[in-house]
Amino acid sequence: MNRRIFTLSLLAAVPYVAFAKPQSSSQLRINGERLNSRLTELAEFGKTPEGGTNRPAYTDADLQARDYVMKLMRETKLEVNVDAAGNIVGRRNGSETSLKPLMIGSHIDSVPAGGSYDGQVGSLGAIEVAQTLSENNVRLRHPLEVTIFQNEEGGTIGSAAISRGLTAKDLDIVTNSKKTIRDGIKFIGGDPDRLANVVRKKGDVAAYLELHIEQGGVLYNEKIDIGVVEGIVGVFWWEVTVEGFANHAGTTPMNQRRDALLAAAKYIEAVNRIVTSIPGRQVGTVGKIQAFPGAFNVVPGRVLTSLGLRDLDAGKVQMLFEKIQAEVRQIETVTGTKFEFKQVNSSNPALTDTRIQKAIDETAKQLGLTTKLMPSGAGHDAQEIADICPVGMIFVPSRDGISHSPREFSKPADITNGANVLLHSILKLDAMPSI
Amino acid sequence: MNRRIFTLSLLAAVPYVAFAKPQSSSQLRINGERLNSRLTELAEFGKTPEGGTNRPAYTDADLQARDYVMKLMRETKLEVNVDAAGNIVGRRNGSETSLKPLMIGSHIDSVPAGGSYDGQVGSLGAIEVAQTLSENNVRLRHPLEVTIFQNEEGGTIGSAAISRGLTAKDLDIVTNSKKTIRDGIKFIGGDPDRLANVVRKKGDVAAYLELHIEQGGVLYNEKIDIGVVEGIVGVFWWEVTVEGFANHAGTTPMNQRRDALLAAAKYIEAVNRIVTSIPGRQVGTVGKIQAFPGAFNVVPGRVLTSLGLRDLDAGKVQMLFEKIQAEVRQIETVTGTKFEFKQVNSSNPALTDTRIQKAIDETAKQLGLTTKLMPSGAGHDAQEIADICPVGMIFVPSRDGISHSPREFSKPADITNGANVLLHSILKLDAMPSI
Repeated sequence: MNRRIFTLSLLAAVPYVAFAKPQSSSQLRINGERLNSRLTELAEFGKTPEGGTNRPAYTDADLQARDYVMKLMRETKLEVNVDAAGNIVGRRNGSETSLKPLMIGSHIDSVPAGGSYDGQVGSLGAIEVAQTLSENNVRLRHPLEVTIFQNEEGGTIGSAAISRGLTAKDLDIVTNSKKTIRDGIKFIGGDPDRLANVVRKKGDVAAYLELHIEQGGVLYNEKIDIGVVEGIVGVFWWEVTVEGFANHAGTTPMNQRRDALLAAAKYIEAVNRIVTSIPGRQVGTVGKIQAFPGAFNVVPGRVLTSLGLRDLDAGKVQMLFEKIQAEVRQIETVTGTKFEFKQVNSSNPALTDTRIQKAIDETAKQLGLTTKLMPSGAGHDAQEIADICPVGMIFVPSRDGISHSPREFSKPADITNGANVLLHSILKLDAMPSI
Repeated sequence: MNRRIFTLSLLAAVPYVAFAKPQSSSQLRINGERLNSRLTELAEFGKTPEGGTNRPAYTDADLQARDYVMKLMRETKLEVNVDAAGNIVGRRNGSETSLKPLMIGSHIDSVPAGGSYDGQVGSLGAIEVAQTLSENNVRLRHPLEVTIFQNEEGGTIGSAAISRGLTAKDLDIVTNSKKTIRDGIKFIGGDPDRLANVVRKKGDVAAYLELHIEQGGVLYNEKIDIGVVEGIVGVFWWEVTVEGFANHAGTTPMNQRRDALLAAAKYIEAVNRIVTSIPGRQVGTVGKIQAFPGAFNVVPGRVLTSLGLRDLDAGKVQMLFEKIQAEVRQIETVTGTKFEFKQVNSSNPALTDTRIQKAIDETAKQLGLTTKLMPSGAGHDAQEIADICPVGMIFVPSRDGISHSPREFSKPADITNGANVLLHSILKLDAMPSI
């Protein structure tokens, strides 16, 4: 029998039914070997001597990596476009024209001197899923959009362009590439004058699913295969200024000093103590510090430092911040200094959709994998996209919990597992009447 | 009577006796108004909008200030030379050719964005003393050398050239002027190839006396006129490196961090606690800090910081350093970090000569001034010169104890007092058989 003719005749009667669909789509598996070897190929663009990837958005390496990814997408028979914001979108039609697209993807830009897995696993994983569906002639009910968001590391810029729209202020930000975001968007083939076109409303997308490395050590340490992300923590940043009085370190007796660095030290210790004083997964970090004038022989008169608090519960962050403030008032009194907190960035927690959490968890278990419900401590494009549709995230283990480092690594088997979970979760969502 | 002829005839019989010496030299007074107005004139060179002085050694402002000072010296009938190290030396012969010179002076270079009193009071005070002697035709037994040491703020370079000699390594140091010390010496008229000529041996100088602002708040707070310096504290500096592990601030749970900045904060607090835990005038300062990578969203993996300890007793400094080390071992254990201390600078305590202390104290009291025996917490040229001769230092109050700042200020009356104490101390030393 000529199978092609047979299926064509079937199509005449039942349009959009899949070609040569396997008996059960539950037997579908992505090609793990191909996925992992593509990850190695992608890592060539911006490769560092330390074995990591240095590929900030809008650099030549970013451009080369984008070309590579678009080539893969075209080979996968996706219809590839770069939107006005510079996001790469590979589209595949669904069988029901009335349905909104299912979106999968991630990003391929890296932090300076970063690793070769963050964003890249989810990007190539999404392409692999599309290719597996294509090779197996599985047509979804929903259109499928594989999206590679631009400049995630610079503040989820590409996904923000879709969910909330970029402001003129956003466009003026100078990025690690030394280009502004405006110039960066032009550099990668977008059009900053047409950004309004890429903004999507609530309901324009059926659901978004993102595969990503955990970037922390929970799955790795607990030997769990798949993290089912319950939400992306809110990130709250403050610039902190401590004003004391600069004076000669030799001639100023200890009891006459107003040492801004001593005050900052007490503050850093307090942040750690307060954040760890209650149970939970909240984190608090002081990552930046600078003392002025910053010399051996001068009592520091001023210190610029920082505060970062993250949790799934914005109320808990507020409570921690208030406790820190109360302790800072005491430090001011004891050290004769003055603290000022200026909030410079905040993103509210973004919860994932419980139906999607359930779909991921069931999918993983059906594949024989262990799972853990967990927050994402890092920000992701999914956080932006949560504003316009239900989202879910799938985590795979990071060795030693290391990320944003050349030492970032996830095992090929774990990456293959993650992509298979992505594939079957998409199939599950596609079949859900409520999505 | 023709006085000139009379004195000339006297000279024939008793060579080198002073012209028109007042009945008692105890009635001599320096010209405070002239001294203070010259301080104001000197402050024009490198004047800052904040009202301070920005005149690091080897800058154009330094060169102009040096010209101004040499002009004053010549008006004072001093025989002016710039030595091979670039120090300005104004000489006046004594009556006894066998005696070594009494040296007085200080420096006129400033720290970047410094004040108009540090070094400058003692420099113009020394010239004023020479001029008062000259105007009153007082010839000392000893030759008098008014020395303006170059680049005190860059590490007592001019005085070190005299006491211990500069090394090739010293000459390569890049200073705040952006010039190396070698090029700086050429710039101000010295000759780096002839530095051996300026080194003096023990005994080449009879004594050195330096007037200086206190730079601390002890005299000012206790309302005391004159500080009799008992010694210049030893200064011990260490570069401190803290190694932890840099990791993502969002994804790394609090209990899995090896936060180098948290460890540094505990260290800074410990230094302050240990140094203030025992009585005495010792000081301990952490003035420098830098965290790597120094970002909101990364747990600091490495911190560069510092330690500075000062005291008149090197043994006490050693004891404090050992206590700090013991506590650092505990911090390493608790935080999973590693500290390294690298000593980068040390100067041993330099005690002043007790005969000179006594002379200053008696002199001040005879002038109706209150005194306090005290250490100098800052380094001074006197510290270097103490290697080759007995030294003494006279302090005048600094308002609010502020120094190395545009807000540095000493009252004109206090400056006048200090210069009068310098004048009469020199007269006392000149008369001592043991000097």
